[in-house]
Amino acid sequence: MAQTSTKSLTDIRRDLHEHAEAGWKEFRTTALVAEELEERGFEVSLGPGAVDPDERLGVPSDEEIAAAVERAREEGAPEEYLDRMEGITGAVAVKTYGDGSGPVVGVRVDMDALERSEATDDDHRPAREGFASVHPDEMHACAHDGHTAIGLGIARRLDEEGGFDGTLKLFFQPAEEGGRGGKPMSETDHLADVEYMLALHLGLGKETGTVVASYERPLANAKVDVTYEGEPAHAGGEPNAGRNALQAASTAIQNLYGIPRHADGPTRINVGQVHSPNPQNIIAERATMRVEVRGRTAELNEYMLDEAHRVVDAAADMHDVDVTTSLYGKTTTFVGDEDLVDTVGEAAGRVDGVTEVVDHQDFGGSEDASFLIRRVQEQGGKGIYLGIGASNVAGHHTAYFDIDEDALDIGVGAVVETLASL
Amino acid sequence: MAQTSTKSLTDIRRDLHEHAEAGWKEFRTTALVAEELEERGFEVSLGPGAVDPDERLGVPSDEEIAAAVERAREEGAPEEYLDRMEGITGAVAVKTYGDGSGPVVGVRVDMDALERSEATDDDHRPAREGFASVHPDEMHACAHDGHTAIGLGIARRLDEEGGFDGTLKLFFQPAEEGGRGGKPMSETDHLADVEYMLALHLGLGKETGTVVASYERPLANAKVDVTYEGEPAHAGGEPNAGRNALQAASTAIQNLYGIPRHADGPTRINVGQVHSPNPQNIIAERATMRVEVRGRTAELNEYMLDEAHRVVDAAADMHDVDVTTSLYGKTTTFVGDEDLVDTVGEAAGRVDGVTEVVDHQDFGGSEDASFLIRRVQEQGGKGIYLGIGASNVAGHHTAYFDIDEDALDIGVGAVVETLASL
Amino acid sequence: MAQTSTKSLTDIRRDLHEHAEAGWKEFRTTALVAEELEERGFEVSLGPGAVDPDERLGVPSDEEIAAAVERAREEGAPEEYLDRMEGITGAVAVKTYGDGSGPVVGVRVDMDALERSEATDDDHRPAREGFASVHPDEMHACAHDGHTAIGLGIARRLDEEGGFDGTLKLFFQPAEEGGRGGKPMSETDHLADVEYMLALHLGLGKETGTVVASYERPLANAKVDVTYEGEPAHAGGEPNAGRNALQAASTAIQNLYGIPRHADGPTRINVGQVHSPNPQNIIAERATMRVEVRGRTAELNEYMLDEAHRVVDAAADMHDVDVTTSLYGKTTTFVGDEDLVDTVGEAAGRVDGVTEVVDHQDFGGSEDASFLIRRVQEQGGKGIYLGIGASNVAGHHTAYFDIDEDALDIGVGAVVETLASL
Amino acid sequence: MAQTSTKSLTDIRRDLHEHAEAGWKEFRTTALVAEELEERGFEVSLGPGAVDPDERLGVPSDEEIAAAVERAREEGAPEEYLDRMEGITGAVAVKTYGDGSGPVVGVRVDMDALERSEATDDDHRPAREGFASVHPDEMHACAHDGHTAIGLGIARRLDEEGGFDGTLKLFFQPAEEGGRGGKPMSETDHLADVEYMLALHLGLGKETGTVVASYERPLANAKVDVTYEGEPAHAGGEPNAGRNALQAASTAIQNLYGIPRHADGPTRINVGQVHSPNPQNIIAERATMRVEVRGRTAELNEYMLDEAHRVVDAAADMHDVDVTTSLYGKTTTFVGDEDLVDTVGEAAGRVDGVTEVVDHQDFGGSEDASFLIRRVQEQGGKGIYLGIGASNVAGHHTAYFDIDEDALDIGVGAVVETLASL
Repeated sequence: MAQTSTKSLTDIRRDLHEHAEAGWKEFRTTALVAEELEERGFEVSLGPGAVDPDERLGVPSDEEIAAAVERAREEGAPEEYLDRMEGITGAVAVKTYGDGSGPVVGVRVDMDALERSEATDDDHRPAREGFASVHPDEMHACAHDGHTAIGLGIARRLDEEGGFDGTLKLFFQPAEEGGRGGKPMSETDHLADVEYMLALHLGLGKETGTVVASYERPLANAKVDVTYEGEPAHAGGEPNAGRNALQAASTAIQNLYGIPRHADGPTRINVGQVHSPNPQNIIAERATMRVEVRGRTAELNEYMLDEAHRVVDAAADMHDVDVTTSLYGKTTTFVGDEDLVDTVGEAAGRVDGVTEVVDHQDFGGSEDASFLIRRVQEQGGKGIYLGIGASNVAGHHTAYFDIDEDALDIGVGAVVETLASL
Repeated sequence: MAQTSTKSLTDIRRDLHEHAEAGWKEFRTTALVAEELEERGFEVSLGPGAVDPDERLGVPSDEEIAAAVERAREEGAPEEYLDRMEGITGAVAVKTYGDGSGPVVGVRVDMDALERSEATDDDHRPAREGFASVHPDEMHACAHDGHTAIGLGIARRLDEEGGFDGTLKLFFQPAEEGGRGGKPMSETDHLADVEYMLALHLGLGKETGTVVASYERPLANAKVDVTYEGEPAHAGGEPNAGRNALQAASTAIQNLYGIPRHADGPTRINVGQVHSPNPQNIIAERATMRVEVRGRTAELNEYMLDEAHRVVDAAADMHDVDVTTSLYGKTTTFVGDEDLVDTVGEAAGRVDGVTEVVDHQDFGGSEDASFLIRRVQEQGGKGIYLGIGASNVAGHHTAYFDIDEDALDIGVGAVVETLASL
Repeated sequence: MAQTSTKSLTDIRRDLHEHAEAGWKEFRTTALVAEELEERGFEVSLGPGAVDPDERLGVPSDEEIAAAVERAREEGAPEEYLDRMEGITGAVAVKTYGDGSGPVVGVRVDMDALERSEATDDDHRPAREGFASVHPDEMHACAHDGHTAIGLGIARRLDEEGGFDGTLKLFFQPAEEGGRGGKPMSETDHLADVEYMLALHLGLGKETGTVVASYERPLANAKVDVTYEGEPAHAGGEPNAGRNALQAASTAIQNLYGIPRHADGPTRINVGQVHSPNPQNIIAERATMRVEVRGRTAELNEYMLDEAHRVVDAAADMHDVDVTTSLYGKTTTFVGDEDLVDTVGEAAGRVDGVTEVVDHQDFGGSEDASFLIRRVQEQGGKGIYLGIGASNVAGHHTAYFDIDEDALDIGVGAVVETLASL
Repeated sequence: MAQTSTKSLTDIRRDLHEHAEAGWKEFRTTALVAEELEERGFEVSLGPGAVDPDERLGVPSDEEIAAAVERAREEGAPEEYLDRMEGITGAVAVKTYGDGSGPVVGVRVDMDALERSEATDDDHRPAREGFASVHPDEMHACAHDGHTAIGLGIARRLDEEGGFDGTLKLFFQPAEEGGRGGKPMSETDHLADVEYMLALHLGLGKETGTVVASYERPLANAKVDVTYEGEPAHAGGEPNAGRNALQAASTAIQNLYGIPRHADGPTRINVGQVHSPNPQNIIAERATMRVEVRGRTAELNEYMLDEAHRVVDAAADMHDVDVTTSLYGKTTTFVGDEDLVDTVGEAAGRVDGVTEVVDHQDFGGSEDASFLIRRVQEQGGKGIYLGIGASNVAGHHTAYFDIDEDALDIGVGAVVETLASL
């Protein structure tokens, strides 16, 4: 019997929270999910069968992947599933209910944790109650542990309630943080026949009991990693002999923030993770930075990305250093389909514990579920992104983030009730 | 009879001061000098016969040149000489004394005024005594009016004193300011047989009566004019549609000043004449700037010039604008020949009015007589750069600059006495 | 009889075009307008009676103002009116029709030309037909000549048609360009009893025959003039002795463009008119620039203005130079009143020559009529900003700008028809 | 018996190399040295008795110091000495030879390792022969292990040879790297009666057998640590809410490199260790950097330091962030006394293995022995800085740095021979 089968959704969520796995390292999570879903009659595709390997972005090194697999093994992930993944996380689980005449509906949940440390003091419930992450630099600070649990919960509830008239495809997506796993999952054949695509997120500032039928218009986003490599030299003895990677990076940063605003709508630019580790008496031979751009539309995002690349490259030329860039992640944007908003809104209103339904809300941030929703919309299908309030005690991505676990059942209910209404 | 023949050196200097002509516009000055020297038996080469036209740097537009010729005509320059100049200023005057067996000695004086306005109040003697420049934006603020007078004075004194044993070549150089006329004059055949090259400067912070036998080691220098051209756009309506020439210039300026210091010796960088004339509601389509670099050696100067070009070009790429650069002027460096230092020092000590002789002094600034001196030295000849103290009441290049005219005779004497000693 | 009384609106517009007067210099324009309106029974307040002198922004120097008055005199402006203006342009003309029981309606037209040169070739009708500006650096390139003519036209048409039931206040505003005259005019008592405020603009990309009932949501705007003053020094001899105003300006420019985008809506930043006139061998002692910020709301504009001031000041500190700033101009934003949109739209539809009425359109740029409209709205009145299509052959503010003069009558008609409907 | 007594200088050097201790962490090194010297009859002052605690620069945190003490204990440092140090490294050992009538001579050697990792492959002799550093981020890459051994060697040799006529003060200085320990040691009373101060360095590009009598004119140097602290904010959701520490740092870096060159002589500026660890979707709340300035003279160094502080502070103001700076290290400059150059040169020429003596050489880098030498010179004494060639196979401060251990005896000999000649 699957390890998770006897656990409540809350216990599963806590177990995942305790063993938080960052993007492309969700081996234990994927394996546990796959095990229960196969037991429940789903056909499960794993790893290279669930994401297009060539489209993956921001993938850790082979050494890091191997270490993550090994860690999953040590922490009890079922071996068979680890083997089937071939070093790539992610799962798509498919089950047809009834006679197969009903619609094909995709539900996407993401599984990855953030690369950050978790609060360890008693003010933080996971620490107080013993399920804080045992991995020092990984933490479920954006509720994906809950999303994964909801994914399983949907399968369970359908089993209990006799299914619905259609085919369910559960997309357990890896590496949402940074926008790295959505695109490779969206380009698989699993999407080809999907008529409705539902994605969901817990929290987002809403109290438990509130459901947002349609979060919309996330900013399209791209992340680029930049490395400048110059030549070291003694800063006292021969400053002219160096090629200064730090001057290149500083020039780039100054000018990246100066990319013109665009008439067509909001854009964003930011730089993070800047490191130039040379001692102060050596001309910097190396500087790295992580650049992020956004735009209200995919076009605006491309505008920013093109401008950023030009600035980054010219800064290298200016200081005669080499530059390498790699796309770390990317998301696009979407708007929910209006009739689906109505359907979801009404379905959510019938769920136990729901006290308020908000029809539309701007997303603010960025999301790579956007690639899955847009693909379905471009094929003529419909998509939507639900929000499930979860009374967070601290902001997303912070060390004290937690969710109200009562929201798990509401999330399951909102999706299952929607499936029944399509 | 030549217009100047009956005037004293002081009166000639005052006449030139009043009709100050900036670089490449010294038509009246050249014509007056040529007229008197031909009268005195010199063979005079003018314009294209005195400088290599293709090597000229920082030449004004054809319209400006034509206007300068016309102005010279209106201000009484002898027509014949204007015609012979063919639009190019400068003169080389040659006369052999004795049997021609003596050495060929070049003396270089420069003739151009600065592009700046002159003080008009009574604290300024030229204004008070009525010989301030009548040209609003041209002023003899670096004593070249005096140098030109000294050039004539040398010819006069030799006539009075019966010459010397050798051939005198007087180089009346145009466009010393900015380092634009020295190189083209240095590349003419007139230099081919010169065995000694003397250049001189009045003032330079020394009192009348002091002579510096050898100013040395001027900083090598290069000046580059830069124009960025982008695309205008309304800054409110469509800021992204512009290509911002001002952002390019600002980036260039920030990084030009950041060119690394060099282990091998002093370098300099400066930017001037920056203009970006767009109204504040239009993205700048155009920005110009004048860049200057220097170095203790010609190699250091080239290092700075290469670095500056790379920065300037990369700034254009960074903001997707076009850039054009042109070399406005250039100088090199030199050291006086040691035995000539002795000769000049002793000769100067015998001149009436000389109270102190300094052997060596660092130049500090830059000078394109460097090209003439180096050419002679490279041919196996000797060169030196004399300083003639002139008790300036205000700094060189400032609105109140003036010279003590007693220094004119000292300058003539120092050169003529040296000629007799070679 | 007033000079203009016998001229058609087209002829008046052409006369004003030919004698284009930039902001705060509209002495001839104001005098001509005042003369005819007094003749037509209006009570006319001039200069300090029409704008609050202390609130004026971007005022030229006393010398420039005196020269502009003198020029107006030479170009035939009626003396009496020049005298009454006391050196300040602008007029408010008031006339009550009927028994005075009707509403008080303000109509605002602006009078100033741009500070730019006009095309002189035959492709440009004003040049071809002989009414191009005789003032080299002033040109009516934004149709304010037509606006002024329309202002007179409204008075004429009401005379012809027997007035309307109410009081008309015609605001002939100076110095709209840069947003300099709107605020001081909005703060006079003339506004205190105004119940409706209409402003209008010709052109704006619309064909003749199109009327836009309500241009709305101009970007709030502020313009700041900045001067950095440092210390000159010879760039070769003593670069450390300078205090470099150009480095300060460049640092400011780089960082101004880097002011963060704002979550609450669009913002803008631009820099123009940058000048640093030092020769390239002197450390820059002076640099000037004109900064412009904008925001979708007045609050966003203030955010940008505060950020810009902080950047500008810190750049001075960074390079140890002095900085002075002065507010050159400012505008705010507004939305037209919805029922007035209906009234104007219907009225415009009844005007001869009108072929299309657009209800709402975003303004895009900035306008200081915003201050007059907002004051009236804040008092409980209503305001609107009309657009009168004029088939421009070239963009606003460009050298070939011109208007289709058939639009003048349409403009008069749209306002007069609206007056009758209030 | 002291632990080191039975070991050769080479073995001591290798033991110190293997247990490399970075600046202010030289607890084991200090303790071992003190133990042997007390055994040899020196009076040894330790820690707060050897350096002025309040003048220390760049001191690690209390936690780091405590860990370093503990590590020294574990690695066999004699307990008694660890206790006497009171958490501060450094030793001054004094012994009078003969009747005390001779001069008081100081010899300064430094003891600290660099904070860097060491090569571990067989191309590197310390790795191949098993004495590479066991501390991952500390390495003797600047020969201070050899200097310390030489310090002991001098005591041993004098014992063997019957001393000299005078008092020897051995200064075992901590924390030379960064210029942190020289100043606090120079301000103790131990210097008050010193008549001659000798310092020495191995290597510096010279082959074994070469001795430089006087390395001179090191650049005066100062190092400043800078931390900017702003406010984080989500870069997509609310970029305006952040206060961007990274923009401050970038602005500072751009302008630090733009500090004007100085007429009086060479200056240097460099920035290293830049870190801004925010993820790319968060406005940077923190950025750190290490700034270094240098100058040919102490005055030039102060000029650079003042300029750097102004730039650093203004960059904080510009981006509305907080800044803290702390002086990490500082050195000054000196010139060796000419008669001491002769004495040392002649003495060195008599040492076994010495094949060439160079009198004078410019130092190039920076050195805080400068403070000890200057103090003695200011008291009327004499100072000098010797170089002992050591055929380094790789550059100082690099991972493959090593010394030819034959140079140890030459170093001992050059000093002892000099002592005999004073």
